[in-house]
Amino acid sequence: MSDENLEIKNQGFYSAGGIVQKTAGTFDPIKGQMAPEGQIRHSDHANVFYQEPTKGNGHKIMFLPGYGQSRVSYMTTPDGRPGFSDIFLKKGYGVYLLDQPRRGEAGQSSVPITISAQPDDLNWFTQFRLGLWPNFMDNTQFPKDDESVDQFFRQMTPDTGEIDFPLITSTTVAALKKSGPAVLMTHSQGGVPGWMIGSASDDVTAIIAIEPGAFVFPKDDVPEKIVTKYPMAIEGIPVSDEAYAKLIKKPIVVYYGDNIPDEPSDVPAWDFWRGSVQMAHKFAEVVNTHGGDAKIVELPKAGIKGNDHFMFQDLNNQEIADHMADWLTERNL
Amino acid sequence: MSDENLEIKNQGFYSAGGIVQKTAGTFDPIKGQMAPEGQIRHSDHANVFYQEPTKGNGHKIMFLPGYGQSRVSYMTTPDGRPGFSDIFLKKGYGVYLLDQPRRGEAGQSSVPITISAQPDDLNWFTQFRLGLWPNFMDNTQFPKDDESVDQFFRQMTPDTGEIDFPLITSTTVAALKKSGPAVLMTHSQGGVPGWMIGSASDDVTAIIAIEPGAFVFPKDDVPEKIVTKYPMAIEGIPVSDEAYAKLIKKPIVVYYGDNIPDEPSDVPAWDFWRGSVQMAHKFAEVVNTHGGDAKIVELPKAGIKGNDHFMFQDLNNQEIADHMADWLTERNL
Repeated sequence: MSDENLEIKNQGFYSAGGIVQKTAGTFDPIKGQMAPEGQIRHSDHANVFYQEPTKGNGHKIMFLPGYGQSRVSYMTTPDGRPGFSDIFLKKGYGVYLLDQPRRGEAGQSSVPITISAQPDDLNWFTQFRLGLWPNFMDNTQFPKDDESVDQFFRQMTPDTGEIDFPLITSTTVAALKKSGPAVLMTHSQGGVPGWMIGSASDDVTAIIAIEPGAFVFPKDDVPEKIVTKYPMAIEGIPVSDEAYAKLIKKPIVVYYGDNIPDEPSDVPAWDFWRGSVQMAHKFAEVVNTHGGDAKIVELPKAGIKGNDHFMFQDLNNQEIADHMADWLTERNL
Repeated sequence: MSDENLEIKNQGFYSAGGIVQKTAGTFDPIKGQMAPEGQIRHSDHANVFYQEPTKGNGHKIMFLPGYGQSRVSYMTTPDGRPGFSDIFLKKGYGVYLLDQPRRGEAGQSSVPITISAQPDDLNWFTQFRLGLWPNFMDNTQFPKDDESVDQFFRQMTPDTGEIDFPLITSTTVAALKKSGPAVLMTHSQGGVPGWMIGSASDDVTAIIAIEPGAFVFPKDDVPEKIVTKYPMAIEGIPVSDEAYAKLIKKPIVVYYGDNIPDEPSDVPAWDFWRGSVQMAHKFAEVVNTHGGDAKIVELPKAGIKGNDHFMFQDLNNQEIADHMADWLTERNL
């Protein structure tokens, strides 16, 4: 168990955004308690657990998780070391941990869904570049003991409604209205809504994107798609000039871990990351050409080796957090 | 937003219990990444977010939520005052907040499910004794403003697999093994697995049950069922003599709020609570006859008025917590 000695000025929880469903008719609380007439239901919101440190630096971070993950992925590590949010809390940042609509503790959805119980952990073991099951990468920073692997996979949690990027965007924008201006940190699938949030909100002070899957471009400046051995090609997402201009007002840094091949790989999931890094560099080039401030950090080129897709949970997550904090400090955040 | 000034010695997160599903065949990380052969999946676990105060009193509380709720129900209030777990943290208790298997951030289930998006909030408005929608009880302690009502309903979150009491029991017992001895606090639906956990674990130091729906009895000492205007009769649940003996080694207190009718009520959901209180008194009588220490607290009879089914979120939740803490202190907990 991690020893923090954290001084918390305040902590709390709130929901943001969402809708209120209504059914026709009139609700009768006595005779018709279980009848559908005239019912309402609050759904499609995000929710946020936040902690503000006593000795704050005046800045906040809103954490948006990746596919199959809740806020928990930023709050813990497989072997029980301090989570990424604890590390930033100790650095003086207010931490705002979001469960996106239709996942985790924000599960109430306006659309029905059938959830399969189909085993698929090993897809993710490959996709996350932990290794080729049951073998880890030789230089992995992931804690390899059985208990850590067990704890890691149990962080995954299903969607309770279809993933809806505009809905993730609108609810996170609403969450930022309540938190006040904050750095937006995204992981993986959170990357695309992250760009949308940066295009829609004045409360985003900067974006730290950890291994996003895709990138946005001005509609007249979308690069050619990148074909890898992964089933889907990697394509730029066109956005309006207005949305793009608003996005690139924010400083942006994108992080990639280790063991991403430079040459085409026989492992489709790994070849996807090769293409993703290529698209990331095109993204930064276009952002900076348009007067923005975008940087791509490939950790091995910065001398930090062995990180996987969950660099914020790896054994060197303190070093990763320090690297990100330096980037923020250079931008007075 | 609540102002806590909490000193946290450490906080963290862990999963407990559950299974590992396996599919037949051999997993091929290269060619068959997305194929079902030889896959595994970690599911049916509980998980726990915990906070230990710097100035602790040496005791812990494990919080088990009620129907449609995650740990969030103990961590916040509709109007943003400190949550119940924050109040006990300030009293010096380590707080351990559990999401049960197949709900919230412990969503990974071994059984498929279809989740309906059917509006039903108003059923709960009645069942929770908030009032008869859109009217609140005259003396309600619930914050009645629209924003508080909105925040309250958005705490609800669906099951991602069938509710399984033995599974909730085994995973909570496993969670208690990791936390060490703790008071078990249950709400509503959590009450029945709460009795099972108390019958199965040596790590439960006492049980505080907030408006449980049902009670256990020795198999030869089950009282007659209680029929109310609610569709289902209230029946005692028989357990083995060994399980019962282990349960009643623990001090037990059961809390009920206000606006529970003494006479049959035309509102079936409210009449259910009338029967539940009657069964609670039979429960305490049998526990104490067998040498246990069980107490039923009906708040209005203790001079505390206007509480609903979510007394731990009501405007007077500090007073409720103080009352519970006094009961614990009398038992050196």
